[in-house]
Amino acid sequence: MNHPVQTVRVGLGDRAYPIEIAHGNLEQVAQSLGALRPISQAIVITDEVVAPLYADRVAKLLRQAGIQTTVLSVPAGEASKSIQSAEQLWQQILAAGADRKTVVVAVGGGVVGDLAGFVAATFARGIDLFQIPTTLLAQVDSSVGGKVGINLPDAKNMVGAFWQPAAVLIDTQVLATLPEREFQAGLAEVIKYGVILDAEFFAWLESQGAALLERHPAVLNHMVARCCRLKADVVEQDEREETGLRAVLNYGHTFCHAIEAATGYGQFLHGEAVAIGMLCASRLAERLGRIDASLTQRQHALLTAVGLPTQVPDVDHRRLVDLMAHDKKVEHGRLRFVLPSRLGHVELVGGVAEADVLAALGEGTT
Amino acid sequence: MNHPVQTVRVGLGDRAYPIEIAHGNLEQVAQSLGALRPISQAIVITDEVVAPLYADRVAKLLRQAGIQTTVLSVPAGEASKSIQSAEQLWQQILAAGADRKTVVVAVGGGVVGDLAGFVAATFARGIDLFQIPTTLLAQVDSSVGGKVGINLPDAKNMVGAFWQPAAVLIDTQVLATLPEREFQAGLAEVIKYGVILDAEFFAWLESQGAALLERHPAVLNHMVARCCRLKADVVEQDEREETGLRAVLNYGHTFCHAIEAATGYGQFLHGEAVAIGMLCASRLAERLGRIDASLTQRQHALLTAVGLPTQVPDVDHRRLVDLMAHDKKVEHGRLRFVLPSRLGHVELVGGVAEADVLAALGEGTT
Repeated sequence: MNHPVQTVRVGLGDRAYPIEIAHGNLEQVAQSLGALRPISQAIVITDEVVAPLYADRVAKLLRQAGIQTTVLSVPAGEASKSIQSAEQLWQQILAAGADRKTVVVAVGGGVVGDLAGFVAATFARGIDLFQIPTTLLAQVDSSVGGKVGINLPDAKNMVGAFWQPAAVLIDTQVLATLPEREFQAGLAEVIKYGVILDAEFFAWLESQGAALLERHPAVLNHMVARCCRLKADVVEQDEREETGLRAVLNYGHTFCHAIEAATGYGQFLHGEAVAIGMLCASRLAERLGRIDASLTQRQHALLTAVGLPTQVPDVDHRRLVDLMAHDKKVEHGRLRFVLPSRLGHVELVGGVAEADVLAALGEGTT
Repeated sequence: MNHPVQTVRVGLGDRAYPIEIAHGNLEQVAQSLGALRPISQAIVITDEVVAPLYADRVAKLLRQAGIQTTVLSVPAGEASKSIQSAEQLWQQILAAGADRKTVVVAVGGGVVGDLAGFVAATFARGIDLFQIPTTLLAQVDSSVGGKVGINLPDAKNMVGAFWQPAAVLIDTQVLATLPEREFQAGLAEVIKYGVILDAEFFAWLESQGAALLERHPAVLNHMVARCCRLKADVVEQDEREETGLRAVLNYGHTFCHAIEAATGYGQFLHGEAVAIGMLCASRLAERLGRIDASLTQRQHALLTAVGLPTQVPDVDHRRLVDLMAHDKKVEHGRLRFVLPSRLGHVELVGGVAEADVLAALGEGTT
């Protein structure tokens, strides 16, 4: 390993945990797991794409370290975040002879992490979860912070828990095999951190521009570690999304979720819809006089530089607004948005007029 | 109300909650709920037996207080603690327009409380749970302490969470409609508290004897409040059953679970199997020289006085031992028992020889 391990510590009292970030540290998985406590059994949960790439390797390393290891694989894709998948995994974990000291090792992207996390949170009333995210999106977002869950047929992430991992191992080398489009989609969430929390980081991303797509180890390590630290700062202050602070992470996501739902979750990757959603939210903030146009333009330029879509798709905008009214972030029927007030700072804004929302959407299609 | 409200406070930091115990306080349900925080929507989860007796009344009182209330009813009985029931409830709660501020009100026995609690723990990553237990067993045990969950086809309570209620309302008047056999079964857990934690309480129960079955309000209130306080003391010190302390509550339960499994969960009510299990554990403690026979005799006399079974059923004892080896309290394959060392005090004892377990079972059939 040429690049040293960076450790981001998520300070959550008795639920605190380390995120270890390096280039090539997957080979140290048994040591990282063993550093938590003596482990005698692990259940590796992965998907059929990641299994041959990384999860089988993880299982081999764990077995070499004397840990009884079972690999359970689900089909790749969002459809696996289902009650049926959870039920099958619970049964398989039981059949593998797991007990309360068994640890679940999630190796994969957001779907695997959310599903495996939910299963870990609920098997035997909760067993330890070790996250090994293998997509950029999962490394900078979903593997950190403890949100786990599955979808109901009509509502994404509607069933779940806050279940903090015991540790997160991030090997940025695994991003080498990530398809270009998925890597770009992950960059949308990276850029989001700059907009909502860290103007300096946003400027650094601008200075890299399209070079971000080259995936240099040092760039990846810095980028991922910074995002994890920023997310950890938020999660430490509002673990269960109760004070509204954690909601800042949802910048662009109210628009994003409506766009994903309206397009049947097939047209866009999540990060792509986030990119479009951030620009909608930014335009909305402009309309409300909270920012000037230059901030929207800077986001547009950076998102475009890394190849992300920026146009609202050709769907009925009223339908998008209706879908937003069903978003979990609505409380007691009130529509709320996370909107920037300057680069690196956002606020939760309630009581936004529908006309302004429609206008923010409309400009995106021109 | 002739009898004042007794409040048992479960001190769990930011998860602390009150248990309000009285005779007739169901009529104050809206005030109790409103004391938590302003509530605009409630989902009452109940079963088809309790709905017409109490849950419909609760819903009416909540609606009169201006709370939008939906009643969801499952079939009575253990079969409702299933993934299918949970899935149906999640969907129904979503369809009712629930959001993160909606509260689940569980009105019923242990099955309803466990199922509704699991659904509350996982809907939208966890919403508030208000427990209104209507059986003696649920009032003194399952409604307090935060254990919620459902069964897998081959393993009871294998999927679940620790999800503390926001409050518990116990109306001992509702016990008037509880069938005699269920009331007796609840007394097994009451007697258990005396054995494991409180010799004075055990002696008080002995002094009441068969009069316990008369369900006098003052007796019920004292009995339930004492059990809740004893359980709260344990839960406060070991919320997630990590230190072994909470395991003391499982006195008799390793035998009990095996007996329940071996008899297909049909022959005995849970409390009845607990009664038999406690005597098995007590005989095991005798064999190991931890107590003398008089303690077993006192338990036997009290359990018999309140009409509980004491004989191990006619099943293969080796099968019972095999079933114990699959109990969740086994860690890394080691069989452990909670055994009394004197009245009011139990210890977790590991490495017990199978021959001693068989002997403790065997004496029960003679």
